Amino acid sequence: MDIKEWRHVFKLDPDKELNDSQIEAICESGTDAIMIGGTQGVSYDNTIDLMARVRRFPLPCVLEVSNIDSVVPGFDLYLVPMVVNAGSADWIVGKHVEGLMDYGALVKWHEVAVEGYIILNPKAEAAKLTEAKTNLTIEEAKAYARFVDQMVKLPILYVEYSGTYGDPALLRAVRSVVKQARLFYGGGIKEVSQAAEIAEIADTVIVGNVIYENLQTALETVNSVKNTVK
Amino acid sequence: MDIKEWRHVFKLDPDKELNDSQIEAICESGTDAIMIGGTQGVSYDNTIDLMARVRRFPLPCVLEVSNIDSVVPGFDLYLVPMVVNAGSADWIVGKHVEGLMDYGALVKWHEVAVEGYIILNPKAEAAKLTEAKTNLTIEEAKAYARFVDQMVKLPILYVEYSGTYGDPALLRAVRSVVKQARLFYGGGIKEVSQAAEIAEIADTVIVGNVIYENLQTALETVNSVKNTVK
Repeated sequence: MDIKEWRHVFKLDPDKELNDSQIEAICESGTDAIMIGGTQGVSYDNTIDLMARVRRFPLPCVLEVSNIDSVVPGFDLYLVPMVVNAGSADWIVGKHVEGLMDYGALVKWHEVAVEGYIILNPKAEAAKLTEAKTNLTIEEAKAYARFVDQMVKLPILYVEYSGTYGDPALLRAVRSVVKQARLFYGGGIKEVSQAAEIAEIADTVIVGNVIYENLQTALETVNSVKNTVK
Repeated sequence: MDIKEWRHVFKLDPDKELNDSQIEAICESGTDAIMIGGTQGVSYDNTIDLMARVRRFPLPCVLEVSNIDSVVPGFDLYLVPMVVNAGSADWIVGKHVEGLMDYGALVKWHEVAVEGYIILNPKAEAAKLTEAKTNLTIEEAKAYARFVDQMVKLPILYVEYSGTYGDPALLRAVRSVVKQARLFYGGGIKEVSQAAEIAEIADTVIVGNVIYENLQTALETVNSVKNTVK
């Protein structure tokens, strides 16, 4: 499994409901991977339940770690967010070190990839939780991108507008400075045309909330992204 | 120039005085590199002056960046500290992003290496400045080391006791979990026997303050380190 091949990913929230036929449609949609993660209400039990239901299908299933208590074994990959524009050190280093105190000796590091996160919607739960500095100018966003991509050399730069559709101009500016990281975009994609617009800029388009609001549209984003040349 | 070959490094402070014969003795001591850096009183002028004086000798001369205003061109390598146990996000990400706002497009990234810093002497200026959480248990220190070495995969882990001699037991515990980073130790080496003790544990021994207190002893640490098998 190589994240560099992912163009489209569905992000499923363990705290939200999907029936079996919906999960089947999502997993057989042609998407490149299923990412499981959320900000609120994520527990060991609802994470393992959702993983087990996705695991019936032969596509990569990865966990985005939101808290140490919901880290379930058996995923193909564990994505660890490092919120570079967080207001406190906790979400950059602190929580990670707490987790490593308990589990550091047990981690299979080849199954872990750190995501340099830039959170940009001030109303998102993740922004409130991390006290993220969301009102970035384009120049500031580029500087954060360089920090992730060139200074710390993380494998993933995740531009996150969770809950609202982002600014393509900002994303394009970020794109222009990224040299090696995989550029993920997530947030507010509710229409097929938006998925295509983002797919022209980002390497990987993450589609989340619309799954729970309009599954048919969500499914259509797969071909839209895959047919778009970056 | 490969930092993986450095066993012994002298760290010179631009804010402190050395005459030409002292600089000659330091540069011809057999040390592997000269690192220029400090916490207070570091300016563009005193940095470029010291660099020019060291540059007369054919050994690597690198800058440890302490503030963006004293970044002088012409060093072989720029070491950028990321203080992972800092109390605020400023010394982990913030200052770096400020610098990247101004100079991000100009940086030659192959000349930059990020140091994951753990600052452990609460009385050191760097500890006060960064509000570092210095009272780490051995288990906490190991978790920070894993964060640097395995999670973020930085090329250097720098255990810094600036001004006081460190705890070899803590350093040994950190050593035991480091897989890929170069382990630097700096702080409080005032005797040849201390240099040897650290050289048994760390990859690279940084000798600083004793240069200004007892140059002869400082010079003797070179062979002490080089003759020690890790």
